[in-house]
Amino acid sequence: MSDLPKKIVIEEQGPREGFQIEPGPISTKDKIALIDALSATGLGIIEVASFVNTSLVPGWADAEAVVGGFTPKPGVAYTALWFNSHGMRRALAFKDRLQIDGAVAFSASEAFSLKNLNRDHAGHLAAMRKTTEGHLAAGVPVTRLVVMASFGCNFSGDVAVSQVTGAIEDGLAIARDYGFSYKSVGLADSMGWATPQKVARVVGAVRERWPELEVSLHLHDTRGLGISNAYEGLRLGVTKFDATVGGLGGCPFAAQPGAPGNIASEELVMLCNEMGIETGVDLDALIEAGRLAETIVGHRLPSAALRAGSLDGFRRRAA
Amino acid sequence: MSDLPKKIVIEEQGPREGFQIEPGPISTKDKIALIDALSATGLGIIEVASFVNTSLVPGWADAEAVVGGFTPKPGVAYTALWFNSHGMRRALAFKDRLQIDGAVAFSASEAFSLKNLNRDHAGHLAAMRKTTEGHLAAGVPVTRLVVMASFGCNFSGDVAVSQVTGAIEDGLAIARDYGFSYKSVGLADSMGWATPQKVARVVGAVRERWPELEVSLHLHDTRGLGISNAYEGLRLGVTKFDATVGGLGGCPFAAQPGAPGNIASEELVMLCNEMGIETGVDLDALIEAGRLAETIVGHRLPSAALRAGSLDGFRRRAA
Repeated sequence: MSDLPKKIVIEEQGPREGFQIEPGPISTKDKIALIDALSATGLGIIEVASFVNTSLVPGWADAEAVVGGFTPKPGVAYTALWFNSHGMRRALAFKDRLQIDGAVAFSASEAFSLKNLNRDHAGHLAAMRKTTEGHLAAGVPVTRLVVMASFGCNFSGDVAVSQVTGAIEDGLAIARDYGFSYKSVGLADSMGWATPQKVARVVGAVRERWPELEVSLHLHDTRGLGISNAYEGLRLGVTKFDATVGGLGGCPFAAQPGAPGNIASEELVMLCNEMGIETGVDLDALIEAGRLAETIVGHRLPSAALRAGSLDGFRRRAA
Repeated sequence: MSDLPKKIVIEEQGPREGFQIEPGPISTKDKIALIDALSATGLGIIEVASFVNTSLVPGWADAEAVVGGFTPKPGVAYTALWFNSHGMRRALAFKDRLQIDGAVAFSASEAFSLKNLNRDHAGHLAAMRKTTEGHLAAGVPVTRLVVMASFGCNFSGDVAVSQVTGAIEDGLAIARDYGFSYKSVGLADSMGWATPQKVARVVGAVRERWPELEVSLHLHDTRGLGISNAYEGLRLGVTKFDATVGGLGGCPFAAQPGAPGNIASEELVMLCNEMGIETGVDLDALIEAGRLAETIVGHRLPSAALRAGSLDGFRRRAA
């Protein structure tokens, strides 16, 4: 297990991922309360809102109110999601509160791109060029390349490694043409197709070809394999993971209502804590934030760690 | 990943584990229906009942009716659980339907033994000797050594590898004194303390010391790490796992109401199928049995795979 990292960074995406998929309206006040609770846990990066088309994602019609309303904690980077220059401009209005950098996102599966964004490969390439231009013109660096459906797709089935590297090539061509480079490439298991073996294959292929790119993992726990996939990522030395408190979220375009969402932050922190990998996160505080998230959404979240609690509580009682 | 086995055996314990912990009474008819559904999935071993003290585990007062009532399928081994010679005699009445072999079970944590069985180390040793004598006198082979709380204990905290090897020594001393040997040693994570790292340490230590003993794993998903622990077991070449359909069960003596139970059989099968490890199990049929189990207990079971379904369904639709 010599590749296990000493330390990882978790980007908490619960507020953004979770509140876009919940059926009931979540109040602005509750969104802010969860962000503030998460800020106190030691998490280093929290994605707080989505500046997306509010007719497609009505749950984020209050993005401005949320981003303007939480209490920033020194040392925590707050991020937001957007897909085009219009969203970027909405985010830029909060550049004193948000870490503003752009991403270029491709899907390894064209079928998912069609369903998720209603764009074919050529259309998506053009859109990403346009988005990149808009960012650079506004002085916003484009630092991340994201590959959705990196491990499989509900609409097109298995995804070959060459489809992932093809998507990365598309992204790198844009960077080359505009004269910048990405800091990281994020491999997203948007629909829960990953297994540890696929993680090893895809991460291995990407690293071998582009050793200069930092690889991060965005994993879902759709079929119960999410934490085993994260563990394989740790074994390979991956140091950046997205996760959501309580396992909030899921993909609204994946055609699987009721399926669990992202890997739960507290399960990832538990795994790391127990293996001596630093996360900087106070697990008990994170579990408390997860319980708040459950109260807010009004139903049980999928995280098992939320239910069972940390081992340290038992250790203290046993001592 | 060179140690990944070609094939594993899953002992399905859903009927026994699940129905001992559910709060509502489960009818004999429903128990039999689930066993018959599981028999059709390709599972090779199904633990169907518990011949235990019915005043402690009232859910199994109908063990005789269940074991007498299911329809045995050729090629499937049906097993039952018991803790003493009285239980064994009840099982022996069904030796035409059950595979009858005995086990000696020790806890790596004395505190758990006290809570679970109300016996200290010396008392438990004496009880295990007596049980062994009873089995051998009745011509029932004692083939398995089980170590409960092999990875940690809610009552005493962390468990050292030496406590596990100590429990195995206790068991081996009995075998030596009575002139038999075990086929396997089962390491049980009774309260969900395992991590992949602990699995590697404990399995490694046991194998190094007793290479002749087959190691099997009984894992719980109490904190969401169950499948990552199973994956580590697979990586180490472990070929025998206990699991329960839907993730039925949990330990009634573990002081954690609401915490998830065993690893879900369908998540383990999914992991294996997707990595090319044979289980002999039809995943879609197993998921159907899991849905039946949910209907029977009247609430959602923790398995994510049950909710999301197999990938093969998506592959067929995509083709």
